Amino acid sequence: MSGADALEFWFEFASTYSYPAAMRIEERARAAGVPLRWKAFLLGPIFAAQGWNDSPFNLYPVKSRYMWRDLERVCAALELPMRRPSRFPRNGLRAARIACWFEDEPWLPAFVRAVYDANFARDADIAEPQVLAACLARAGAPAEALDAAGDDAARAKLRARVDEAVALGIFGAPSFVVGGELFWGNDRLEDALAWARGARPDRARA
Amino acid sequence: MSGADALEFWFEFASTYSYPAAMRIEERARAAGVPLRWKAFLLGPIFAAQGWNDSPFNLYPVKSRYMWRDLERVCAALELPMRRPSRFPRNGLRAARIACWFEDEPWLPAFVRAVYDANFARDADIAEPQVLAACLARAGAPAEALDAAGDDAARAKLRARVDEAVALGIFGAPSFVVGGELFWGNDRLEDALAWARGARPDRARA
Repeated sequence: MSGADALEFWFEFASTYSYPAAMRIEERARAAGVPLRWKAFLLGPIFAAQGWNDSPFNLYPVKSRYMWRDLERVCAALELPMRRPSRFPRNGLRAARIACWFEDEPWLPAFVRAVYDANFARDADIAEPQVLAACLARAGAPAEALDAAGDDAARAKLRARVDEAVALGIFGAPSFVVGGELFWGNDRLEDALAWARGARPDRARA
Repeated sequence: MSGADALEFWFEFASTYSYPAAMRIEERARAAGVPLRWKAFLLGPIFAAQGWNDSPFNLYPVKSRYMWRDLERVCAALELPMRRPSRFPRNGLRAARIACWFEDEPWLPAFVRAVYDANFARDADIAEPQVLAACLARAGAPAEALDAAGDDAARAKLRARVDEAVALGIFGAPSFVVGGELFWGNDRLEDALAWARGARPDRARA
Protein backbone atom coordinates (compact mmCIF):
# COMPACT_ATOMS: atom_id res chain seq x y z
CA MET A 1 0.00 0.00 0.00
CA SER A 2 2.82 2.41 0.74
CA GLY A 3 6.57 2.51 1.08
CA ALA A 4 6.39 3.88 4.62
CA ASP A 5 8.39 2.29 7.41
CA ALA A 6 6.44 0.50 10.13
CA LEU A 7 5.77 2.39 13.34
CA GLU A 8 6.10 0.53 16.63
CA PHE A 9 3.76 1.77 19.34
CA TRP A 10 5.18 1.03 22.79
CA PHE A 11 2.49 1.38 25.42
CA GLU A 12 1.97 0.64 29.11
CA PHE A 13 -1.61 0.28 30.38
CA ALA A 14 -1.00 2.32 33.53
CA SER A 15 0.53 5.22 31.58
CA THR A 16 -1.66 8.29 31.41
CA TYR A 17 -0.43 9.76 28.12
CA SER A 18 -0.55 6.32 26.51
CA TYR A 19 -4.33 6.63 26.78
CA PRO A 20 -4.89 9.39 24.17
CA ALA A 21 -2.16 7.85 22.01
CA ALA A 22 -3.81 4.42 22.07
CA MET A 23 -7.24 5.81 21.26
CA ARG A 24 -6.13 7.68 18.15
CA ILE A 25 -3.09 5.85 16.78
CA GLU A 26 -4.80 3.25 14.58
CA GLU A 27 -6.82 5.87 12.72
CA ARG A 28 -3.85 8.23 12.38
CA ALA A 29 -1.51 5.51 11.14
CA ARG A 30 -4.08 4.33 8.62
CA ALA A 31 -4.63 7.88 7.35
CA ALA A 32 -0.86 8.30 6.99
CA GLY A 33 -0.47 4.91 5.27
CA VAL A 34 1.97 3.76 7.95
CA PRO A 35 1.95 0.09 9.07
CA LEU A 36 1.47 -0.18 12.84
CA ARG A 37 2.93 -2.69 15.32
CA TRP A 38 1.48 -2.83 18.85
CA LYS A 39 4.15 -3.33 21.53
CA ALA A 40 2.74 -3.75 25.03
CA PHE A 41 5.41 -3.47 27.71
CA LEU A 42 5.85 -2.57 31.39
CA LEU A 43 7.42 0.57 32.80
CA GLY A 44 7.69 -0.75 36.37
CA PRO A 45 10.94 -2.68 35.86
CA ILE A 46 12.43 0.25 33.91
CA PHE A 47 11.51 2.76 36.61
CA ALA A 48 12.85 0.41 39.29
CA ALA A 49 16.20 0.30 37.49
CA GLN A 50 16.30 4.12 37.80
CA GLY A 51 15.69 3.90 41.53
CA TRP A 52 11.97 4.73 41.46
CA ASN A 53 9.57 2.48 43.35
CA ASP A 54 6.46 4.28 42.13
CA SER A 55 5.27 6.36 39.20
CA PRO A 56 7.49 9.45 38.90
CA PHE A 57 4.26 11.44 38.99
CA ASN A 58 3.53 10.15 42.48
CA LEU A 59 7.10 10.90 43.51
CA TYR A 60 6.83 14.54 42.35
CA PRO A 61 3.44 15.96 43.42
CA VAL A 62 3.87 19.31 41.64
CA LYS A 63 4.48 17.52 38.35
CA SER A 64 1.59 15.17 39.08
CA ARG A 65 -0.83 18.06 39.59
CA TYR A 66 0.22 19.52 36.25
CA MET A 67 0.03 16.17 34.44
CA TRP A 68 -3.57 15.47 35.44
CA ARG A 69 -4.69 18.95 34.39
CA ASP A 70 -2.75 18.66 31.12
CA LEU A 71 -4.21 15.23 30.43
CA GLU A 72 -7.66 16.68 30.99
CA ARG A 73 -6.96 19.36 28.37
CA VAL A 74 -5.44 16.88 25.91
CA CYS A 75 -8.40 14.52 26.21
CA ALA A 76 -10.92 17.37 25.94
CA ALA A 77 -9.28 18.55 22.72
CA LEU A 78 -9.59 15.01 21.32
CA GLU A 79 -13.14 14.69 22.71
CA LEU A 80 -12.05 11.67 24.73
CA PRO A 81 -13.80 11.01 28.04
CA MET A 82 -11.43 11.16 31.00
CA ARG A 83 -12.01 10.37 34.65
CA ARG A 84 -9.01 10.43 36.95
CA PRO A 85 -8.51 6.87 38.27
CA SER A 86 -9.18 6.59 41.99
CA ARG A 87 -5.95 4.62 42.19
CA PHE A 88 -2.82 5.41 40.18
CA PRO A 89 -0.98 3.68 38.75
CA ARG A 90 -3.22 0.65 38.22
CA ASN A 91 -1.56 -2.73 37.91
CA GLY A 92 -1.56 -3.51 34.19
CA LEU A 93 0.53 -6.68 34.34
CA ARG A 94 -2.18 -9.14 33.35
CA ALA A 95 -3.51 -6.87 30.61
CA ALA A 96 0.02 -6.44 29.27
CA ARG A 97 0.60 -10.18 29.15
CA ILE A 98 -2.59 -10.60 27.10
CA ALA A 99 -1.75 -7.72 24.76
CA CYS A 100 1.82 -8.92 24.28
CA TRP A 101 0.90 -12.56 23.69
CA PHE A 102 -1.93 -11.84 21.25
CA GLU A 103 -0.42 -8.82 19.54
CA ASP A 104 -1.06 -10.08 16.01
CA GLU A 105 -4.72 -10.92 16.57
CA PRO A 106 -7.23 -8.79 14.68
CA TRP A 107 -9.06 -7.99 17.93
CA LEU A 108 -5.93 -6.65 19.65
CA PRO A 109 -6.41 -2.91 18.91
CA ALA A 110 -10.01 -2.99 20.15
CA PHE A 111 -8.91 -4.83 23.30
CA VAL A 112 -6.18 -2.29 24.00
CA ARG A 113 -8.63 0.58 23.62
CA ALA A 114 -11.15 -1.17 25.88
CA VAL A 115 -8.54 -1.52 28.63
CA TYR A 116 -7.54 2.15 28.40
CA ASP A 117 -11.18 3.15 28.42
CA ALA A 118 -11.72 1.04 31.56
CA ASN A 119 -8.72 2.59 33.30
CA PHE A 120 -9.00 6.25 32.32
CA ALA A 121 -12.68 6.81 31.44
CA ARG A 122 -14.50 4.36 33.75
CA ASP A 123 -12.18 4.11 36.77
CA ALA A 124 -12.34 0.31 36.60
CA ASP A 125 -9.53 -1.78 38.09
CA ILE A 126 -7.76 -3.32 35.11
CA ALA A 127 -5.97 -5.74 37.42
CA GLU A 128 -9.30 -7.53 37.97
CA PRO A 129 -9.97 -10.60 35.77
CA GLN A 130 -13.65 -9.74 35.35
CA VAL A 131 -12.76 -6.27 34.07
CA LEU A 132 -10.37 -7.76 31.53
CA ALA A 133 -12.95 -10.39 30.57
CA ALA A 134 -15.37 -7.58 29.75
CA CYS A 135 -12.67 -5.83 27.70
CA LEU A 136 -12.04 -9.02 25.73
CA ALA A 137 -15.77 -9.39 25.12
CA ARG A 138 -16.05 -5.79 23.91
CA ALA A 139 -13.21 -6.47 21.46
CA GLY A 140 -14.83 -9.67 20.17
CA ALA A 141 -11.96 -11.78 21.50
CA PRO A 142 -12.33 -15.36 22.73
CA ALA A 143 -12.85 -15.59 26.51
CA GLU A 144 -10.00 -18.11 26.78
CA ALA A 145 -7.53 -15.32 26.04
CA LEU A 146 -7.77 -14.35 29.71
CA ASP A 147 -6.24 -17.63 30.89
CA ALA A 148 -3.46 -17.59 28.34
CA ALA A 149 -2.00 -14.60 30.16
CA GLY A 150 -0.94 -16.87 33.00
CA ASP A 151 1.07 -19.26 30.85
CA ASP A 152 4.81 -19.37 31.22
CA ALA A 153 5.21 -18.58 27.55
CA ALA A 154 3.14 -15.39 27.85
CA ARG A 155 5.10 -14.33 30.93
CA ALA A 156 8.40 -14.97 29.19
CA LYS A 157 7.33 -13.05 26.09
CA LEU A 158 6.48 -9.95 28.13
CA ARG A 159 9.75 -10.17 30.07
CA ALA A 160 11.66 -10.30 26.79
CA ARG A 161 9.62 -7.35 25.55
CA VAL A 162 10.73 -5.23 28.51
CA ASP A 163 14.36 -6.19 27.82
CA GLU A 164 13.84 -5.11 24.23
CA ALA A 165 12.45 -1.76 25.39
CA VAL A 166 15.55 -1.17 27.49
CA ALA A 167 17.77 -2.09 24.55
CA LEU A 168 15.94 0.45 22.38
CA GLY A 169 16.55 3.20 24.94
CA ILE A 170 12.89 3.41 25.94
CA PHE A 171 12.37 5.06 29.34
CA GLY A 172 8.72 6.15 29.26
CA ALA A 173 5.39 5.66 27.54
CA PRO A 174 4.00 6.09 25.05
CA SER A 175 7.04 5.68 22.84
CA PHE A 176 7.19 5.30 19.08
CA VAL A 177 10.02 3.60 17.23
CA VAL A 178 10.56 3.98 13.48
CA GLY A 179 13.67 2.32 12.14
CA GLY A 180 16.11 3.05 14.96
CA GLU A 181 14.50 6.41 15.72
CA LEU A 182 12.82 6.90 19.09
CA PHE A 183 10.01 9.36 19.82
CA TRP A 184 8.62 9.79 23.32
CA GLY A 185 5.19 11.12 24.27
CA ASN A 186 1.70 11.35 22.85
CA ASP A 187 2.57 14.71 21.32
CA ARG A 188 5.32 13.14 19.21
CA LEU A 189 2.93 10.80 17.33
CA GLU A 190 2.63 13.12 14.34
CA ASP A 191 6.43 13.51 14.14
CA ALA A 192 6.88 9.74 14.28
CA LEU A 193 4.33 9.21 11.50
CA ALA A 194 6.03 11.85 9.36
CA TRP A 195 9.37 10.12 9.98
CA ALA A 196 7.88 6.79 8.90
CA ARG A 197 6.80 8.47 5.67
CA GLY A 198 10.33 9.61 5.03
CA ALA A 199 10.36 13.17 6.39
CA ARG A 200 13.89 13.95 7.51
CA PRO A 201 14.55 17.54 8.58
CA ASP A 202 18.06 18.63 7.71
CA ARG A 203 20.56 17.87 10.39
CA ALA A 204 21.07 20.85 12.67
CA ARG A 205 23.74 23.17 11.40
CA ALA A 206 26.65 23.49 13.77
CA MET B 1 -4.99 45.46 19.54
CA SER B 2 -6.73 42.29 20.64
CA GLY B 3 -8.74 40.96 23.55
CA ALA B 4 -6.33 38.08 24.10
CA ASP B 5 -4.94 37.38 27.56
CA ALA B 6 -1.24 37.95 28.10
CA LEU B 7 1.06 34.96 27.90
CA GLU B 8 3.88 34.66 30.43
CA PHE B 9 6.97 32.92 29.07
CA TRP B 10 8.95 31.34 31.92
CA PHE B 11 12.43 30.44 30.73
CA GLU B 12 15.74 29.30 32.21
CA PHE B 13 18.92 29.94 30.21
CA ALA B 14 20.37 26.48 30.86
CA SER B 15 17.18 24.71 29.75
CA THR B 16 17.48 22.93 26.43
CA TYR B 17 13.85 23.08 25.30
CA SER B 18 13.66 26.74 26.35
CA TYR B 19 16.01 27.42 23.44
CA PRO B 20 13.61 26.68 20.55
CA ALA B 21 10.78 28.28 22.54
CA ALA B 22 12.76 31.49 23.08
CA MET B 23 13.78 31.73 19.44
CA ARG B 24 10.25 31.53 18.07
CA ILE B 25 7.93 32.88 20.76
CA GLU B 26 7.99 36.59 19.93
CA GLU B 27 7.05 35.98 16.31
CA ARG B 28 4.37 33.42 17.20
CA ALA B 29 2.81 35.61 19.88
CA ARG B 30 2.76 38.60 17.54
CA ALA B 31 1.13 36.52 14.80
CA ALA B 32 -1.49 35.32 17.29
CA GLY B 33 -2.10 38.83 18.65
CA VAL B 34 -1.15 37.71 22.17
CA PRO B 35 0.74 40.10 24.49
CA LEU B 36 3.94 38.51 25.76
CA ARG B 37 5.67 38.83 29.15
CA TRP B 38 9.23 37.53 29.53
CA LYS B 39 9.83 35.81 32.87
CA ALA B 40 13.43 34.74 33.44
CA PHE B 41 13.81 32.37 36.38
CA LEU B 42 16.07 29.63 37.73
CA LEU B 43 15.33 25.93 37.86
CA GLY B 44 18.23 25.07 40.16
CA PRO B 45 16.48 25.98 43.43
CA ILE B 46 13.31 24.20 42.27
CA PHE B 47 15.20 21.03 41.36
CA ALA B 48 17.09 21.17 44.65
CA ALA B 49 13.79 21.26 46.53
CA GLN B 50 12.88 18.00 44.76
CA GLY B 51 16.12 16.41 45.88
CA TRP B 52 18.05 16.82 42.62
CA ASN B 53 21.52 18.32 42.73
CA ASP B 54 21.94 18.36 38.94
CA SER B 55 19.83 18.52 35.80
CA PRO B 56 17.44 15.55 35.77
CA PHE B 57 18.85 14.79 32.32
CA ASN B 58 22.29 14.27 33.82
CA LEU B 59 20.76 12.10 36.56
CA TYR B 60 19.03 9.83 34.02
CA PRO B 61 21.42 9.10 31.15
CA VAL B 62 18.87 7.18 29.04
CA LYS B 63 16.53 10.16 29.11
CA SER B 64 19.44 12.48 28.43
CA ARG B 65 20.45 10.55 25.30
CA TYR B 66 16.91 10.81 24.01
CA MET B 67 16.59 14.51 24.86
CA TRP B 68 19.67 15.56 22.89
CA ARG B 69 18.54 13.63 19.86
CA ASP B 70 15.01 14.98 20.16
CA LEU B 71 16.30 18.55 20.54
CA GLU B 72 18.38 18.03 17.41
CA ARG B 73 15.21 17.00 15.50
CA VAL B 74 13.15 19.86 16.96
CA CYS B 75 15.79 22.45 16.05
CA ALA B 76 16.26 20.98 12.58
CA ALA B 77 12.52 21.23 11.91
CA LEU B 78 12.65 24.91 12.94
CA GLU B 79 15.88 25.44 10.96
CA LEU B 80 17.61 26.54 14.15
CA PRO B 81 21.35 25.86 14.50
CA MET B 82 22.15 23.54 17.40
CA ARG B 83 25.47 22.46 18.84
CA ARG B 84 25.43 20.39 21.99
CA PRO B 85 27.12 22.45 24.72
CA SER B 86 30.42 20.93 25.86
CA ARG B 87 29.21 21.52 29.40
CA PHE B 88 25.62 21.05 30.54
CA PRO B 89 23.94 22.70 32.27
CA ARG B 90 25.71 26.03 31.93
CA ASN B 91 25.42 28.47 34.81
CA GLY B 92 22.82 31.00 33.72
CA LEU B 93 22.58 32.91 37.00
CA ARG B 94 24.13 36.18 35.82
CA ALA B 95 22.20 36.13 32.54
CA ALA B 96 18.97 35.47 34.44
CA ARG B 97 19.60 38.41 36.77
CA ILE B 98 20.04 40.70 33.75
CA ALA B 99 16.97 39.33 31.96
CA CYS B 100 14.85 39.57 35.10
CA TRP B 101 15.97 43.08 36.05
CA PHE B 102 15.59 44.55 32.55
CA GLU B 103 12.55 42.56 31.47
CA ASP B 104 10.60 45.56 30.21
CA GLU B 105 13.41 46.99 28.10
CA PRO B 106 12.87 46.96 24.34
CA TRP B 107 16.21 45.13 23.84
CA LEU B 108 15.26 42.29 26.21
CA PRO B 109 13.96 39.78 23.63
CA ALA B 110 17.03 40.18 21.43
CA PHE B 111 19.29 39.76 24.48
CA VAL B 112 17.49 36.57 25.52
CA ARG B 113 17.85 35.14 22.01
CA ALA B 114 21.54 36.10 21.92
CA VAL B 115 22.18 34.23 25.18
CA TYR B 116 20.39 31.10 23.94
CA ASP B 117 22.28 31.30 20.68
CA ALA B 118 25.56 31.52 22.62
CA ASN B 119 24.67 28.53 24.80
CA PHE B 120 23.08 26.15 22.30
CA ALA B 121 24.43 27.17 18.89
CA ARG B 122 27.94 28.50 19.68
CA ASP B 123 28.93 26.49 22.75
CA ALA B 124 29.95 29.68 24.55
CA ASP B 125 30.01 29.82 28.35
CA ILE B 126 27.13 32.11 29.29
CA ALA B 127 28.50 32.38 32.83
CA GLU B 128 31.38 34.48 31.45
CA PRO B 129 30.96 38.28 31.64
CA GLN B 130 32.58 38.83 28.25
CA VAL B 131 30.11 36.44 26.60
CA LEU B 132 27.20 38.30 28.17
CA ALA B 133 28.72 41.64 27.19
CA ALA B 134 28.74 40.46 23.58
CA CYS B 135 25.10 39.34 23.91
CA LEU B 136 24.14 42.77 25.25
CA ALA B 137 25.98 44.43 22.38
CA ARG B 138 24.23 42.22 19.81
CA ALA B 139 20.90 43.23 21.34
CA GLY B 140 21.75 46.94 21.26
CA ALA B 141 21.66 47.14 25.05
CA PRO B 142 23.82 49.52 27.11
CA ALA B 143 27.04 47.91 28.33
CA GLU B 144 26.26 48.99 31.90
CA ALA B 145 23.49 46.43 32.04
CA LEU B 146 26.14 43.83 32.81
CA ASP B 147 27.03 45.44 36.13
CA ALA B 148 23.44 45.93 37.20
CA ALA B 149 23.15 42.17 37.51
CA GLY B 150 25.29 42.24 40.61
CA ASP B 151 23.14 44.73 42.51
CA ASP B 152 21.25 43.59 45.55
CA ALA B 153 18.01 44.74 43.98
CA ALA B 154 18.57 42.57 40.88
CA ARG B 155 19.44 39.58 43.06
CA ALA B 156 16.35 40.08 45.20
CA LYS B 157 14.11 40.42 42.15
CA LEU B 158 15.29 37.10 40.73
CA ARG B 159 14.89 35.36 44.08
CA ALA B 160 11.31 36.64 44.30
CA ARG B 161 10.76 35.45 40.73
CA VAL B 162 11.75 31.91 41.65
CA ASP B 163 9.35 32.02 44.62
CA GLU B 164 6.64 33.15 42.23
CA ALA B 165 7.41 30.23 39.91
CA VAL B 166 7.00 27.80 42.80
CA ALA B 167 3.71 29.44 43.79
CA LEU B 168 2.46 29.01 40.21
CA GLY B 169 3.25 25.29 40.27
CA ILE B 170 6.13 25.64 37.78
CA PHE B 171 8.55 22.70 37.89
CA GLY B 172 10.32 22.85 34.54
CA ALA B 173 11.13 25.09 31.58
CA PRO B 174 9.95 26.42 29.31
CA SER B 175 6.59 27.03 30.95
CA PHE B 176 3.78 29.25 29.76
CA VAL B 177 1.17 30.78 32.05
CA VAL B 178 -2.09 32.26 30.77
CA GLY B 179 -4.49 33.44 33.45
CA GLY B 180 -4.00 30.71 36.03
CA GLU B 181 -3.41 28.04 33.38
CA LEU B 182 0.00 26.37 33.21
CA PHE B 183 1.53 24.79 30.09
CA TRP B 184 4.90 23.03 30.21
CA GLY B 185 7.23 22.41 27.31
CA ASN B 186 8.17 23.95 23.99
CA ASP B 187 5.55 21.77 22.29
CA ARG B 188 2.76 23.38 24.36
CA LEU B 189 3.41 26.90 23.00
CA GLU B 190 0.68 26.65 20.39
CA ASP B 191 -1.83 25.38 22.97
CA ALA B 192 -0.94 28.23 25.32
CA LEU B 193 -1.39 30.80 22.55
CA ALA B 194 -4.75 29.29 21.63
CA TRP B 195 -5.75 29.43 25.29
CA ALA B 196 -4.78 33.11 25.45
CA ARG B 197 -7.05 33.73 22.48
CA GLY B 198 -9.95 32.14 24.31
CA ALA B 199 -9.93 28.55 23.04
CA ARG B 200 -11.38 26.35 25.75
CA PRO B 201 -11.97 22.71 24.83
CA ASP B 202 -14.99 21.28 26.61
CA ARG B 203 -14.20 19.83 29.96
CA ALA B 204 -13.56 16.11 29.76
CA ARG B 205 -16.75 14.14 30.07
CA ALA B 206 -16.74 11.81 33.04
